[in-house]
Amino acid sequence: MAKNIGRQSVKFEKDIYIKCACATVGTKEGDGPLGKYFDRVLEDNLNGAVSWEEAESSIIKENVEMLMKKADMKNSEIDYIVSGDLLNQCCASTYGLRETEIPFLGVFGACSTMGEAMSIGSMIIESGAAQNVIAGASSHFCSAEKQFRFPLELGNQRPPTSTWTVTGAGAVVLTDKKENDAPIIEGITTGKIIDMGITDANNMGAAMAPAAVDLILNNFRDLGIDEDYYDLIITGDLGYVGKDITIKMLREKGYDISGKYTDCGIEIFDRDKQDTHSGGSGCACSAAVFSAYFYEKIKKGELKKVLFIPTGALMSPTSVQQGESIAGIAHGVMIRTK
Amino acid sequence: MAKNIGRQSVKFEKDIYIKCACATVGTKEGDGPLGKYFDRVLEDNLNGAVSWEEAESSIIKENVEMLMKKADMKNSEIDYIVSGDLLNQCCASTYGLRETEIPFLGVFGACSTMGEAMSIGSMIIESGAAQNVIAGASSHFCSAEKQFRFPLELGNQRPPTSTWTVTGAGAVVLTDKKENDAPIIEGITTGKIIDMGITDANNMGAAMAPAAVDLILNNFRDLGIDEDYYDLIITGDLGYVGKDITIKMLREKGYDISGKYTDCGIEIFDRDKQDTHSGGSGCACSAAVFSAYFYEKIKKGELKKVLFIPTGALMSPTSVQQGESIAGIAHGVMIRTK
Repeated sequence: MAKNIGRQSVKFEKDIYIKCACATVGTKEGDGPLGKYFDRVLEDNLNGAVSWEEAESSIIKENVEMLMKKADMKNSEIDYIVSGDLLNQCCASTYGLRETEIPFLGVFGACSTMGEAMSIGSMIIESGAAQNVIAGASSHFCSAEKQFRFPLELGNQRPPTSTWTVTGAGAVVLTDKKENDAPIIEGITTGKIIDMGITDANNMGAAMAPAAVDLILNNFRDLGIDEDYYDLIITGDLGYVGKDITIKMLREKGYDISGKYTDCGIEIFDRDKQDTHSGGSGCACSAAVFSAYFYEKIKKGELKKVLFIPTGALMSPTSVQQGESIAGIAHGVMIRTK
Repeated sequence: MAKNIGRQSVKFEKDIYIKCACATVGTKEGDGPLGKYFDRVLEDNLNGAVSWEEAESSIIKENVEMLMKKADMKNSEIDYIVSGDLLNQCCASTYGLRETEIPFLGVFGACSTMGEAMSIGSMIIESGAAQNVIAGASSHFCSAEKQFRFPLELGNQRPPTSTWTVTGAGAVVLTDKKENDAPIIEGITTGKIIDMGITDANNMGAAMAPAAVDLILNNFRDLGIDEDYYDLIITGDLGYVGKDITIKMLREKGYDISGKYTDCGIEIFDRDKQDTHSGGSGCACSAAVFSAYFYEKIKKGELKKVLFIPTGALMSPTSVQQGESIAGIAHGVMIRTK
């Protein structure tokens, strides 16, 4: 039985293994500093499709197929797939996964989706309802720009606080079947919706940072730990702007994580050469960077304990146009080397 | 520990009680045959808000507040809230629940959301990660028409196969703390994405019926039961068109559920007097009808065993415009009298 600890955290009794992880990314991500770690880099961001939406679905589909090959498993062995994306009505996942014949739980946590999917997947396994669960998330720069901002053809300028939506997908197989080298999810901390009144849709880092801070504080308090417990704390897509805010806000609360903290949005692009301003974002940012890069580091023991915190901005173009503030959420997954 | 049975089903070891249920609906739903059962009928579908989206959020917010009062619980006693809606990026839930300070898991299952939320909530409780979970869903006729079809001001005609999105919200408190009279969730069957190639966005019943049929067949097969096991099978929002298809398709498979089967979309409106064509739909259709009407019937023992199956059409205006077919999904929840 899982142990509910404090207000927002859970420690699992079972060893929940991340048996396998797989990531596909677009061309720009392939050109970035983590390019060599991804399982696949697209040659063409349209991936043979006729629309950006179809392209995103095809990336999810092929990434899950690749994951199954890597894991040497058949779809029929997977009890549930928990997945989501940024498109209206989560259509990238729907169309990408419709042929899998795997019981499907669609989730929406904006760019925190990978954290939410891994959290739900872990609890399902802990409950005994499943042995093997896939957790995944995706995003696509072109489908996201089209939907959330402006048509690409318009060639709009982007402010320095803006981030660049990652094209790609990341997915993992979670299992309670003993795996010798696989990283283990030892617990989770589930985020609340945090709304600090930010209304600038070009500054998602500022909108999400308070949610990341709240998550980290609750993780520390619930478990009676501090930053020393972890080798690394990894947020999802706060970028440079959000990372600075997070460090500053936590310092005010008495914690200095600056020496052991990074953000997937900062890792994935080269700040000087790739012109992505504040960094990468999108569900695939944390999903792909974790699945390809940090997963392997934990597996090899280069990182022994990490707190992985995908972060999401809960908003829609309609809500922004109506003057609503942008709420943030973050979902923390505590992962350790076997 | 939950028992994973067959491909898609789970039986819980714990008694997972539906401690309390609460439903709010709009004026039209209040005028319908179930009007007297709802906890609250709005006087004005805008509910004091300045937009339909804000109205939907306010309905969720106030319905959860009412649920907490009925359950005599504080928000701090709720471990998770699992909720979703039809709006782009699930914004109705985000803004409706941002002040709850409850760890939040956003889900998207289109109109099957209530079934998905109850399923995830049950598994979370079974895992030990939570004692009390709220599962909920909402929709609003005006925000849905605006987003999925035409501006209301256009006064478009609706084809006979179309359904009427229910305005409202339904939510339940799930708990493993012993409750004397509360209905119990004994198991779940989680749906796969089923796509039979329907492309008519005005015929959701036909798009979703195959998913309901697949769910029922898998529930029967996984558990080695048939329609005799239940007093009633209740689908979400197939309406008259989808209900007929479901009965017909199941007959072809050797099951006759016609004598013990209904659909929330048929129950909620008066076919002759309310001009809603094929019936009600939307996340709130199954969520509100279950929470207000069937919940009480099970609690009183008038129904001893039911299979509650919210049904969803996985599509977006973009996917329909691009010629994509409409995929369906259904999530089954097995509920029995204490």
